[in-house]
Amino acid sequence: MSSIRVVVAGYGNVGRGVIAAIRNNPDMVLAGIVSRSPERVKKEISDVPVLPLADVEKWVAELRPDVAVLCGGSKNDLPEQTAMINKFVNTVDSFDNHSCIPQYFAKVDASAQESGFVSVISTGWDPGVFSMERVLANSFLPGCRAYGFYGLGEAGGLSMGHSDALRTIEGVLDARQYTHAVPEAIEKVRAGDNPQFTPGDMHTRECFVVAAPGADKEKITSEIINMPGYFAPYRTTVNFVTMEELKAKYSGFPHDGLVVAAGTTGDGNAAGIEYRCKWSSNPEATANILVAHARAAVRLAAEGRKGAFTILDIPPAYFSTLSKAELLEKWM
Amino acid sequence: MSSIRVVVAGYGNVGRGVIAAIRNNPDMVLAGIVSRSPERVKKEISDVPVLPLADVEKWVAELRPDVAVLCGGSKNDLPEQTAMINKFVNTVDSFDNHSCIPQYFAKVDASAQESGFVSVISTGWDPGVFSMERVLANSFLPGCRAYGFYGLGEAGGLSMGHSDALRTIEGVLDARQYTHAVPEAIEKVRAGDNPQFTPGDMHTRECFVVAAPGADKEKITSEIINMPGYFAPYRTTVNFVTMEELKAKYSGFPHDGLVVAAGTTGDGNAAGIEYRCKWSSNPEATANILVAHARAAVRLAAEGRKGAFTILDIPPAYFSTLSKAELLEKWM
Repeated sequence: MSSIRVVVAGYGNVGRGVIAAIRNNPDMVLAGIVSRSPERVKKEISDVPVLPLADVEKWVAELRPDVAVLCGGSKNDLPEQTAMINKFVNTVDSFDNHSCIPQYFAKVDASAQESGFVSVISTGWDPGVFSMERVLANSFLPGCRAYGFYGLGEAGGLSMGHSDALRTIEGVLDARQYTHAVPEAIEKVRAGDNPQFTPGDMHTRECFVVAAPGADKEKITSEIINMPGYFAPYRTTVNFVTMEELKAKYSGFPHDGLVVAAGTTGDGNAAGIEYRCKWSSNPEATANILVAHARAAVRLAAEGRKGAFTILDIPPAYFSTLSKAELLEKWM
Repeated sequence: MSSIRVVVAGYGNVGRGVIAAIRNNPDMVLAGIVSRSPERVKKEISDVPVLPLADVEKWVAELRPDVAVLCGGSKNDLPEQTAMINKFVNTVDSFDNHSCIPQYFAKVDASAQESGFVSVISTGWDPGVFSMERVLANSFLPGCRAYGFYGLGEAGGLSMGHSDALRTIEGVLDARQYTHAVPEAIEKVRAGDNPQFTPGDMHTRECFVVAAPGADKEKITSEIINMPGYFAPYRTTVNFVTMEELKAKYSGFPHDGLVVAAGTTGDGNAAGIEYRCKWSSNPEATANILVAHARAAVRLAAEGRKGAFTILDIPPAYFSTLSKAELLEKWM
């Protein structure tokens, strides 16, 4: 099998992670980077072509990618870019606004069905692997529910999607959002209560925001805590900090999470399932998962499949570099 | 969608678990039970037909199953039964002799390709869900390895496959096998060492055996510790106990396990993935997973697919009772 040619669309934290992940996957090659600001990217990158994102037909012709990994934000970038790019090439993205996924799927699917390409949407670790673990736990323990928790350690976990959303607000120069799991909620699940939670019962959100000089902090705070989907459903705290403080104290991208489900088998025998991950670099972990899905997208396309897919629609073997014989021998 | 008609082949612990699981899955109905000893089963079961297992064509015609869940042992039952039954109906089984899976797959696949039915093989929690978690972890963290550990608690975990293997030995009236994880091995994996283990580095095996009166205990011990695949690669201890002791002290079916992988993302940022399950009843947990795969087998067959499949070949959505729209809305 010849190398999978990947274009990275968007050169932020996830985009940088995808470039690193491609280097760590021997069956892939970075065909090029496309960006809304190619000149900015070229200051850092000189060994692969960097082209303007908007002219999709042109960069697809020039870079001949098998798949484009879309690394833009979920709030403004992906809803506009994905259905535009999948007219010309297979795509993978990490659209992470959970409540909007059905509409997003429908839009991307319509475009990909028409063009004949494959678009894997909303993948990463959540939505993505955690979605899959929730569905599997619910399937294997009927009647139980599976729950996702994030930021189990004291520091919490940095949410990129929510940090990105904060940075779209006028007057915000930079920002970080840390998610904290509510420990009592985890224990309720482990006890087999299958509790009915609102999102706000499970997590709190802590924002560290650098405001522009003269910006209206009250207005920024109000915009944050009322942002639908992202912050409105949660107990959200907003802390204004200086740029120096943000960089010194909130510079890494650590995150961790847990899917937990407790139910019964037979006539009431307790059963529990937990999936946990811990990342020093959340964007790199997301990138690694995106790249495995890029491999799957190319394989689906090679089978003549088209349209939108989520991780729920993809056989696990498609993510692996190993052959069927190797998987049966080594990993079953 | 009309109810999925399931035949349970084999009325042991897993078979009983499958019958209970079918009751807990609203889209399924128990069409009947087939057994090598139907008269024995009829003493316990009167509300569904119980027929002789061997006459496959007859019970398929009579019970009209969409799928048969094969609950026999991996050592003697399944290698003979699966390719015989999949000539007439879709099958699901939990063949668990890891080192023989490639040959087993080939044999079952040849038969199912010819007959046009679907056979999902070697599923349950390991092989099965744990296999999938290993492959996913290895795909998402290239270069890292994923490891499965069992029996993390003090009591260890009861292995049904290995207990079954013990009971095939001449002179053994009954037996239980408890698996113990080697804690130092787990810590080595968590530290990111990606160690090269032999099976015996990771687990020890503890057998509790009731010998027939006058049986040669030395010969039994020797047969156990030298049994290829099952015991030969492990530090195995054999304890002879009375039937009363076995029933009093070793009567439940608890088991638990962990898939653990530690690697890096990007240029060396630590990353860890762990999947853990804990069952009060291991056979019921296996049964619950088998039943979800029975649903998947019927869906694959409805698409015109045929041949042998493992969990690695099946999209996770196929295990769920939920529609695509529900999955996108609720569980992504």
